[in-house]
Amino acid sequence: MPQPLLSAIQYHTFPRPLPLWRGGALASVTLANETWGALSPNRDNVVLLLHALTGDSHAADPHEPDNPKAAWWNPLIGPGRAFDTDRYFVICSNVIGGCQGTTGPASTDPETGKPYALNFPVITVQDMVRAQREMLTGLGIRRLAAVAGGSIGGMQALEWAVRYPADVDAALLFGATERIGPQAIGFNAIGRSAIMLDPAWCDGRYEPGHGPDTGLQIARMVGMLTYQSSQGQWLRFGREPASRPASASPLGEKFDIEGYLEYQGRSLARRFDANSYLYLTRAMDLYDVADGWESEGAALERIRARTLHVGMSTDWLYPPEQVRALAQKLDALGKDAVYTELTSVHGHDAFLKEWPDMERIVGEYLDTPRVTLHAKETRRPAPTPAQAT
Amino acid sequence: MPQPLLSAIQYHTFPRPLPLWRGGALASVTLANETWGALSPNRDNVVLLLHALTGDSHAADPHEPDNPKAAWWNPLIGPGRAFDTDRYFVICSNVIGGCQGTTGPASTDPETGKPYALNFPVITVQDMVRAQREMLTGLGIRRLAAVAGGSIGGMQALEWAVRYPADVDAALLFGATERIGPQAIGFNAIGRSAIMLDPAWCDGRYEPGHGPDTGLQIARMVGMLTYQSSQGQWLRFGREPASRPASASPLGEKFDIEGYLEYQGRSLARRFDANSYLYLTRAMDLYDVADGWESEGAALERIRARTLHVGMSTDWLYPPEQVRALAQKLDALGKDAVYTELTSVHGHDAFLKEWPDMERIVGEYLDTPRVTLHAKETRRPAPTPAQAT
Repeated sequence: MPQPLLSAIQYHTFPRPLPLWRGGALASVTLANETWGALSPNRDNVVLLLHALTGDSHAADPHEPDNPKAAWWNPLIGPGRAFDTDRYFVICSNVIGGCQGTTGPASTDPETGKPYALNFPVITVQDMVRAQREMLTGLGIRRLAAVAGGSIGGMQALEWAVRYPADVDAALLFGATERIGPQAIGFNAIGRSAIMLDPAWCDGRYEPGHGPDTGLQIARMVGMLTYQSSQGQWLRFGREPASRPASASPLGEKFDIEGYLEYQGRSLARRFDANSYLYLTRAMDLYDVADGWESEGAALERIRARTLHVGMSTDWLYPPEQVRALAQKLDALGKDAVYTELTSVHGHDAFLKEWPDMERIVGEYLDTPRVTLHAKETRRPAPTPAQAT
Repeated sequence: MPQPLLSAIQYHTFPRPLPLWRGGALASVTLANETWGALSPNRDNVVLLLHALTGDSHAADPHEPDNPKAAWWNPLIGPGRAFDTDRYFVICSNVIGGCQGTTGPASTDPETGKPYALNFPVITVQDMVRAQREMLTGLGIRRLAAVAGGSIGGMQALEWAVRYPADVDAALLFGATERIGPQAIGFNAIGRSAIMLDPAWCDGRYEPGHGPDTGLQIARMVGMLTYQSSQGQWLRFGREPASRPASASPLGEKFDIEGYLEYQGRSLARRFDANSYLYLTRAMDLYDVADGWESEGAALERIRARTLHVGMSTDWLYPPEQVRALAQKLDALGKDAVYTELTSVHGHDAFLKEWPDMERIVGEYLDTPRVTLHAKETRRPAPTPAQAT
């Protein structure tokens, strides 16, 4: 699966099979990553970044540092930036099950010589984290100054802090909770159903480049609607007619939101593997921080890292109340947990769009081991959410 | 299209073509309805009920008056009930474009002798209302003591009050707004895309009983998620494993919400025509009360009926704030508009589930020409919503 990219993507190949959370093992594993900055002699300046569902290891692009769209956290990473590469060795890891240079359902099954497709095992957030841990160990890195991620990347950051408590100093979670609810599972199920309805899906055994593009497009339309807020969509699209070319319809001219969703859907279908979409959304559904421990409390009790929990004010997929509730649970356990809220119309996606706020929140948290301002405001959360802006 | 039912469904056939809002005409129109109670000699006791998207004319079932599931507003209709059939002649009309006894895309096109399918014209809420008006005129009824409906049925009730102001005394709107926003349009578009992706759809030219059931099932899954609240789904489904038979999955055991959504999807696919689903969701998208008038204000200014606007506290498809805003606009125009909020975890669907509250709200509003209690609380809405319970 390695794909040639302009950027400095690296492929870490595992020396042995990766045991899996739900049983079995993955025989041959490659995990893609990119790095920025220099590893300190003591190897104690590592920041691990973890991307969202359809993201990849390309968190920053030094060739286009001023283009926010060149990489998913581009404005936050670089010399003097929030994730300061003069100070930190920043590494962004892809996930197993993915399709951006890492072993996933499109990879060749060494047993058959053909793509795994649906023979790929069900993978979990725990497996993603274990693979990242093994990769870092292979690079001689044991300790993380910080781990940070949004959405399913934030779930991975949480799992890092629970699974390897001695090795994580700080965890930054954006729009992430300890588990998702039935509404979010339902939307994931709809996306998967659309992919599997597409006749081009062929029970997952499609040829590269001939996959279920329309099904994946519909899955992405569902995703985009859930990542944004109703309020933001009113502001951006209203009830205007389509401003982008949209597919023909027997039902008359389309609305702008329809053209936009189709555009986003086509865009994902060009760059993402449909089977990976099935597996990664399932990993999101399955994640529960309590899994493998006696209780949720027993899992959270393990954490030694200080944690930052950022809720997005208009996020209805990972509601800010639920993000705050996790911080409160940790606080009640005596942990150093800070909640802050990013006020935005951008819904769940705010952590990929609100650059000045994100710079400030990350920068302050990483610069000051105890962020007095936030801690004072939110260590004992008030009935109304503390605002970040 | 007439289907034999145990209940007293009646089919009104129009003596002439029905001119359509977006141009053209529908040559041969049949509109289904059911009635309960007796028409007064003065024909002044008529209450018109209008159903939601996939509903039908079967609002009440006198054979099973105590079974809430026997008809969609069954607990509200009958002798001594909120819509009191000892007092009112209650009539529930189906909609053109539908598939429950009324002319729609599955009906025979008189020009070809085959089903219209996608040759059916795009229809609008305005057309639905015009057809209802012509049917009532044919029955010798001109004036409505009340018109009531939820969701797209509420849009029709609003359109009745705007289009025929002299003939509507009261309009009761449940979870209905003057237009829907891009988020709701986007979800409708996803449902339509899934139907059209289903290979059984065949560009709309499927045989009866061999339609795009899986596509329609997915569309219904989207609908059900939007009609319910996240909070209600946590309470009912949580993250429990599927309690209903769900389709097999290569991704492991399903969650309860998945089994439930599939069950609801299959259930709709058995009773509803997929092409009708395309046309009716489009009518919902297209509706804008301002259409055909100089401005929204000019449209609302026409209303002479007193209006009741009921928002559902956890409705995110037709948010209570927007339902309230419509009442406020009417109030600002000097109209007799009352807003009340139904506190419920059932989201948009609350008007089909919260029977004691619905009985009280409808009963009080119809019994008392000026509902002092509600009017006092809500004629000048306070910053926090007035609660109905």
